[in-house]
Amino acid sequence: MNQTAIGVDIGGTSVKLGLVDRKGNILVRDQFPTGRRGDRARTLAELARRVRALRAAARSKKLKVLGLGVGAPGPIDVERGFVYFFPNIPGWNNVRLRDELKRRTGLVSYVDNDANAMALGEQMFGAAKGFGNVIALTLGTGVGGGLVIDGRLFHGPTFSAAELGHVAIDPNGPRCGCGSRGCIETYVGNGYLVREARKRLDAGEKSVLKHWLAGGKETLSPRLIGEAALEGDRFAIRFWTETGVRLGTFLAGLVNVLNPERIVLGGGVATEKPYLFAAVKATIREKAFPIAAKSVKVVPAKLGADAGLIGAASLAFAGAR
Amino acid sequence: MNQTAIGVDIGGTSVKLGLVDRKGNILVRDQFPTGRRGDRARTLAELARRVRALRAAARSKKLKVLGLGVGAPGPIDVERGFVYFFPNIPGWNNVRLRDELKRRTGLVSYVDNDANAMALGEQMFGAAKGFGNVIALTLGTGVGGGLVIDGRLFHGPTFSAAELGHVAIDPNGPRCGCGSRGCIETYVGNGYLVREARKRLDAGEKSVLKHWLAGGKETLSPRLIGEAALEGDRFAIRFWTETGVRLGTFLAGLVNVLNPERIVLGGGVATEKPYLFAAVKATIREKAFPIAAKSVKVVPAKLGADAGLIGAASLAFAGAR
Repeated sequence: MNQTAIGVDIGGTSVKLGLVDRKGNILVRDQFPTGRRGDRARTLAELARRVRALRAAARSKKLKVLGLGVGAPGPIDVERGFVYFFPNIPGWNNVRLRDELKRRTGLVSYVDNDANAMALGEQMFGAAKGFGNVIALTLGTGVGGGLVIDGRLFHGPTFSAAELGHVAIDPNGPRCGCGSRGCIETYVGNGYLVREARKRLDAGEKSVLKHWLAGGKETLSPRLIGEAALEGDRFAIRFWTETGVRLGTFLAGLVNVLNPERIVLGGGVATEKPYLFAAVKATIREKAFPIAAKSVKVVPAKLGADAGLIGAASLAFAGAR
Repeated sequence: MNQTAIGVDIGGTSVKLGLVDRKGNILVRDQFPTGRRGDRARTLAELARRVRALRAAARSKKLKVLGLGVGAPGPIDVERGFVYFFPNIPGWNNVRLRDELKRRTGLVSYVDNDANAMALGEQMFGAAKGFGNVIALTLGTGVGGGLVIDGRLFHGPTFSAAELGHVAIDPNGPRCGCGSRGCIETYVGNGYLVREARKRLDAGEKSVLKHWLAGGKETLSPRLIGEAALEGDRFAIRFWTETGVRLGTFLAGLVNVLNPERIVLGGGVATEKPYLFAAVKATIREKAFPIAAKSVKVVPAKLGADAGLIGAASLAFAGAR
């Protein structure tokens, strides 16, 4: 009987779930809105109902469901499947999520944070398939990180490892939300990128972005600055190159510490950014030790919008092996 | 029969070796000068002769020798026990050291670089005993590093991991010997510390060090600046505090990445430096994520001058388990 797992990606606005096979294909998918404040019980009941439906679908296709994996947007005690809290969804403090799901669905369940789930998904099914030592970064509002070490997700003894966004690259850098200064997140997080570009444009630097924004229909965003670079805009190309040098400086340090085989860059900021990638690669070659620099490849994430769901399912595949 | 291992610490000036028991005690020790250029064959023959003597000593005490561990001052292919080269000892390029030793002594042999050996020694027998996730730093002319992850030395797929001295903490920092800029080694390596202190003294800062140096018998060194701090010299206290903040900033980043339980600081620079340690600890508490910061302790290395030898023996204990 073919083996599958059910993946659940809990996000701020919707919960996505799906039946995923051993090759990382989503065979059946489903989604519903994440409940608002106080709706946790309802969200959990709804989730359990839909998981049972997926399980029934699997049975009708003569597929075996090995387990349930959940990627969740906050810190998790992975051993107990315990949710400490979700920074952006109120009402989920101190939830025994694994036990709740096991009880309601009968499936062996695994819970991890979404960045770790995505890292494992890319390692099992995506851009780092077949490599045992992987650094994954998700670039968005914040910088999420996941580490695969010797073939397994690395959590650290108190499940606090892989907070990759919060490594300082400049002691005099911008104040970070975490309380430190100059964390890489303060250079490549969405908010910083937009503020920095805005500041430069306001200071009089030339760019096609000014015309695009003058129309009033567009908002300054990493996506827009990315499009400008693809159209050859010098301001935007320089902007992504500088961002890539910063990211590459940070990654060169990590390469010297962890000697990874693949570095996977995902999330909106990493999409369609050839200048960013080129600068990251050149900087790692320049700054990391030669053997380590030669043995690592920097690659874009492959799983795209499904990374969360497939990553969540991969938690169950990894747990069940 | 009680179990032992033979540890060999190859250094630039001498080779130290000893019979080490399961508790990390050195039962018998020996040492001889490292041969000069071209003397590799003679050094190896001498080493093998002395290892056989230790083995005979073990036999006479009815002790079993599980194997031979070697800590070597350069990059190693740990799987093959292959020496690429020793930066400070000519004539050791591309040596199948493990096979050579096995052939000449009959003992199962393990070869690793000295920083890794010391890290494992501290984890098995020293300041990090009993902890599975450990970062070890040896502060001296350079900064050596070793990582224990989930109870095992972590080497990385091309044995290039744990080059902890070469993580940049300031993109505009001093040029480093590795080709990058602002590596932590450029702030806490011996040479930098002495140059920086000299610069400040020459710029007119007050310190008891000026009087000590005026006598002509003392040379400016980390040891001397350390003694000045212990005597309450404000210049020296500030100097070590600033150095600790830099080291702590770097370590806070590593704590967020690796979530270690112990950070072991060894080497001459770390000896008798209460102000350095205090600043390192305070900075980690300030800059790392709270759960990770709370679960780590920064401790001085325990094995001292024997760290290399005991660490080397620990390679054999770990390999034989």
